Amino acid sequence: MTDVAAQPTADELAPPTPVIDRDAARRAYDDDRAHVFHSWSAQGALTPMVVAAAQGCWLWDGEGNRYLDFSSQLVNTNIGHQHPAVVAAIQEQAGRLCTIAPQHANDVRSEAARLVTERAPQGLDHVFFTNGGAEAIENAVRMARLHTGRRKVLSRYRSYHGHTQAAIHLTGDPRRWPNDSGAEGVVHFVGPFLYRSQFHATTEAEESERALAHLAHVVEMEGPATIAAIVLETIPGTAGIMTPPPGYLAGVRELCDRHGILLILDEVMAGFGRTGEWFALDGIDGGVTPDLIAFAKGVNSGYVPLGGVILSNAVYETFRERPYPGGLTYSGHPLACAAAVATIRAMEQDGIVDHARRIGQDVLGPGLRELAARHAVIGEVRGRGVFWALELVADRETREPLVPYNASGAAAKPMNDLVAACKRRGLLPFVNMNRLHVVPPCIVTEAEARLGLRLLDEALAEVFGG
Amino acid sequence: MTDVAAQPTADELAPPTPVIDRDAARRAYDDDRAHVFHSWSAQGALTPMVVAAAQGCWLWDGEGNRYLDFSSQLVNTNIGHQHPAVVAAIQEQAGRLCTIAPQHANDVRSEAARLVTERAPQGLDHVFFTNGGAEAIENAVRMARLHTGRRKVLSRYRSYHGHTQAAIHLTGDPRRWPNDSGAEGVVHFVGPFLYRSQFHATTEAEESERALAHLAHVVEMEGPATIAAIVLETIPGTAGIMTPPPGYLAGVRELCDRHGILLILDEVMAGFGRTGEWFALDGIDGGVTPDLIAFAKGVNSGYVPLGGVILSNAVYETFRERPYPGGLTYSGHPLACAAAVATIRAMEQDGIVDHARRIGQDVLGPGLRELAARHAVIGEVRGRGVFWALELVADRETREPLVPYNASGAAAKPMNDLVAACKRRGLLPFVNMNRLHVVPPCIVTEAEARLGLRLLDEALAEVFGG
Ligand SMILES: Cc1ncc(COP(=O)(O)O)c(C=O)c1O
Ligand SMILES: Cc1ncc(COP(=O)(O)O)c(C=O)c1O
Repeated sequence: MTDVAAQPTADELAPPTPVIDRDAARRAYDDDRAHVFHSWSAQGALTPMVVAAAQGCWLWDGEGNRYLDFSSQLVNTNIGHQHPAVVAAIQEQAGRLCTIAPQHANDVRSEAARLVTERAPQGLDHVFFTNGGAEAIENAVRMARLHTGRRKVLSRYRSYHGHTQAAIHLTGDPRRWPNDSGAEGVVHFVGPFLYRSQFHATTEAEESERALAHLAHVVEMEGPATIAAIVLETIPGTAGIMTPPPGYLAGVRELCDRHGILLILDEVMAGFGRTGEWFALDGIDGGVTPDLIAFAKGVNSGYVPLGGVILSNAVYETFRERPYPGGLTYSGHPLACAAAVATIRAMEQDGIVDHARRIGQDVLGPGLRELAARHAVIGEVRGRGVFWALELVADRETREPLVPYNASGAAAKPMNDLVAACKRRGLLPFVNMNRLHVVPPCIVTEAEARLGLRLLDEALAEVFGG
Repeated sequence: MTDVAAQPTADELAPPTPVIDRDAARRAYDDDRAHVFHSWSAQGALTPMVVAAAQGCWLWDGEGNRYLDFSSQLVNTNIGHQHPAVVAAIQEQAGRLCTIAPQHANDVRSEAARLVTERAPQGLDHVFFTNGGAEAIENAVRMARLHTGRRKVLSRYRSYHGHTQAAIHLTGDPRRWPNDSGAEGVVHFVGPFLYRSQFHATTEAEESERALAHLAHVVEMEGPATIAAIVLETIPGTAGIMTPPPGYLAGVRELCDRHGILLILDEVMAGFGRTGEWFALDGIDGGVTPDLIAFAKGVNSGYVPLGGVILSNAVYETFRERPYPGGLTYSGHPLACAAAVATIRAMEQDGIVDHARRIGQDVLGPGLRELAARHAVIGEVRGRGVFWALELVADRETREPLVPYNASGAAAKPMNDLVAACKRRGLLPFVNMNRLHVVPPCIVTEAEARLGLRLLDEALAEVFGG
């Protein structure tokens, strides 16, 4: 960041700006406001940006403004926008066979299942495909309940698992609150998060040990024999990209084994290259083997809706003779599976997973820590690969969050100002509560990553002072 | 059926058989058995058919055997397989922009929302897009609960609403049983079904009146002020294609209005042409206006996973200032929306909805009634458009179902034999319990429909005697 003049500019790095039809974009905006109901929002206040085109790590709005996409949309375009091999595979499959019911078999569905399981830990050999992450969690929980014959499920505060009823009850963020019936058999516990330790820990080792002791206590108090599963994002994503401290996940695995509880790892956001590994679980405690893995997003970068559950062979056996009571019209959708096959092959051939790890180690990690050294508003830098969070604080000593938990409207102004400052500079960030997440596609180049850091540096200086 | 010799054969009607790579199909089968977990099934017993190619109302297995698709897969390919305009639209959109996050706006998402709402009843102007039918129901119920501030939801026995937790609890078929926590705030009532009347009715008018009185009683007993919504498939699909008797839906609408209860109509299977109307609700009681409509399947024939909820303006208003607590990564997915735009336009231009109605009136209705006259195993013929059920009975007098409710294994043998006999003749049917559903794509030609009837006639004769 010292030799700014030598760094390439956005004009040098970005693909040529495509032709944008501004009238079409205006119509798109008008029809959106007249007819589209948006997620997680009060509809009245929305002024959505029309996205007219996208390529690699870049996208353009309806007026031809260009943005470097440091959000990967909802942290799903791991392979970037419009990867030619994946686009070609979708086009080819569309010409061949768009859709087929789940009870039949189909070449790309079979191949996608094989490629996914080949990347999972040993002993998890089958995939149940869904349309997205929430349905994956729904089915993982259903499998665990039927396999164990128990009903209760544990999950952590500061987590997100999806919007459908079982998934939203597991979620440990405020999006659960308006949906909670209190009758779902879900119990929330406190997970490890050293920066805001609930366990008065001062080291990672202490946080790990105390968080494990807390979980063991909750399990004991709830009754181990009543608990079907513990559900964890391997690395909580939207909730703050908090890599578990060494020993924690291995400890949860042991606790589960001790009590016949299944371990469900949610790799929806963390999986498929995001952390610089195929699955985030590969990079933690020397590799953790859960009983069920939920995935979505990165499996095909969201080019076609796809998610799924990877089952351990023991869980699979439960449903060898006994019918599995779950299913959906588009399970193993050929177009979605073709996109997954092409995505996984391209990630393999282009070494995209290793690339994401190196970008984290060599560029984003050091660069973000340098930002923290220059901006007092950054309380902590956390992450790996292309999966980073900046914890923004009003006060570094007290660690008071820059905006309160679940802030909206005026209370969220500093975060909204920061987003606006980023967007004015052509940088599209991902924010949640008091955090800014740096989550570009895995294919982000070193130069693009450095450009993004520079734009973020400027935006932080503008909003919070240099 | 009298002039069989004059009728065209499958060889004359079907498109040319595509080249089938049998080795690839065998690999697809092996990988399927090794890695794919299938819906609603005991995995050990499965021998799925590899679908290698499909076109219009036809498909081919891995050995090159041809089938006339009278299942529309899971009753979703309303426009048939591989419609060239829809395939082209997907390919074009894939080349342009595969995916974009739900918080942004996008031309095809906007257009799809407009085209869907233009076909909905007056006063339902907004669409919340999901990936499929279950998620549509989940969100419709969430909207109703938040709009009314009430929690309880009523739905009927003999219904299917999807596999996620809220949806499966609403479901009134045995797939709910292994998933039911008993704590979901769902109450099931008996809907109208004259052939198996629970109300000792002998006419449609009586069944309608008595089923309404029963529902009013349940509402009274449950406490009207505790009920957020009544959820109904406009015409129950998988449960048996039971068109509600005249006055029933209008009566439910009145009951809801009297108590401030929302009416949610599930048009996932019945919508988008299946009944010979854009929505099944258009063809019943002179048109019924619900508060929320769930849709999926036919909206884009399942070429890309898509579903959604159409909201009344009153429900929309609830979420103008207040954030809506639901959402998903792929809400309004561009590829899925592009497929919907192309599907709706093609259905409009080719007059596919009217065609489906005429096929029902002129060919399938009369033809199936003729089959019933010849085969004692057919207890009742029900339906409209390309949405027909044959109720198969062991005894026409007692109306004893040919196989028991929720039969499987040996108990289901007569139905399995019938499926096998159909498939040997190159006809792919849809069966559920003691029913065979005749649900070809809306584009089925008169000649194809007559061919299917002939093959079904032969299969019935083989299994049950002529
Ligand atoms: C960790 C995690 N689990 C589940 C989900 C839900 O996935 P979907 O939005 O595809 O339903 C998400 C979505 O952001 C997620 O991040
Ligand atoms: C009436 C009805 N509602 C909901 C669903 C669930 O839709 P999906 O399988 O897309 O989740 C179905 C599926 O068959 C259905 O027929």
